Amino acid sequence: MEIIVLRLGHRLPRDERISTHVALVARAFGANSIIYSGQHDSGLEASVKKICENWGGLFHISYERNPLTFIKKMKDTGFTVLHLTMYGISLSDKLNALKLHKKLLIIVGSEQVPRDIYEFADFNISITNQPHSEVAALAITLDRLNKGKKIDFRGKLSIKPSARGKVLEKK
Amino acid sequence: MEIIVLRLGHRLPRDERISTHVALVARAFGANSIIYSGQHDSGLEASVKKICENWGGLFHISYERNPLTFIKKMKDTGFTVLHLTMYGISLSDKLNALKLHKKLLIIVGSEQVPRDIYEFADFNISITNQPHSEVAALAITLDRLNKGKKIDFRGKLSIKPSARGKVLEKK
Repeated sequence: MEIIVLRLGHRLPRDERISTHVALVARAFGANSIIYSGQHDSGLEASVKKICENWGGLFHISYERNPLTFIKKMKDTGFTVLHLTMYGISLSDKLNALKLHKKLLIIVGSEQVPRDIYEFADFNISITNQPHSEVAALAITLDRLNKGKKIDFRGKLSIKPSARGKVLEKK
Repeated sequence: MEIIVLRLGHRLPRDERISTHVALVARAFGANSIIYSGQHDSGLEASVKKICENWGGLFHISYERNPLTFIKKMKDTGFTVLHLTMYGISLSDKLNALKLHKKLLIIVGSEQVPRDIYEFADFNISITNQPHSEVAALAITLDRLNKGKKIDFRGKLSIKPSARGKVLEKK
């Protein structure tokens, strides 16, 4: 499954860290790339690239000025659009249907998501109908979609899981 | 299962939004309360209380100046301590063991977690061994621990899940 994450409405300095967490979650849980819209942020891009350089994987980040045009283009090239929103249908009700799709564009919003996004989305999906976090919603969605898939990042840095300490391995 | 989340080392203004997301995830995914250490932040407490007031539930937030003393006290009153860290053992290897415990203190760190925490923890648990987000790690841990448990928040506000729009219900 090819998965692209679209982070809408990035604002500086407010979203600096949340958008970084969104990007790192996208990478760690097996998405192929993250696209962000809103304010351009070379600092965000640099931190994500640094992580990829050290920890491996083929993940990449890029910027789109016009997210609606981008979403239409993705739909035209065969992507199914999944918008994560607390107003949507529960993920568990749609998980099996979603797994049948080969190319998924997962949209996560910031403060106010334009009405159009709800219309363009093939699926408006919620992870609980309570206010919480786009970071959490994305992580749970990717975790359930990729269930059991072991990702081999082959980075310069890697961790040997440990019951009590920190074991960092360097190549 | 009684679950308390401990958020370590809150820093202002850097962690304002991440700690809020940690707290809202704790609430939405069924923890009983969040305790935070680091800098005291009445803004963080106010936002969490506001959410609880509007969206319901018995969740609460409070501050602890000395997290190590607090952890020891919790252990003495029968809590099992689970520390979420990218260096730990995979959650899936320990999930069944964790589910047997009735009282769980889940610790999520900020930048640098003191060595002692790794020692005090009964379990050092990772959600992937890649860098990502304490918000995501907490959400996935609570989601898997509480699997299938439907939480009824009975708030003034609630959402009727919808395939395409926003349906907010007010009591």
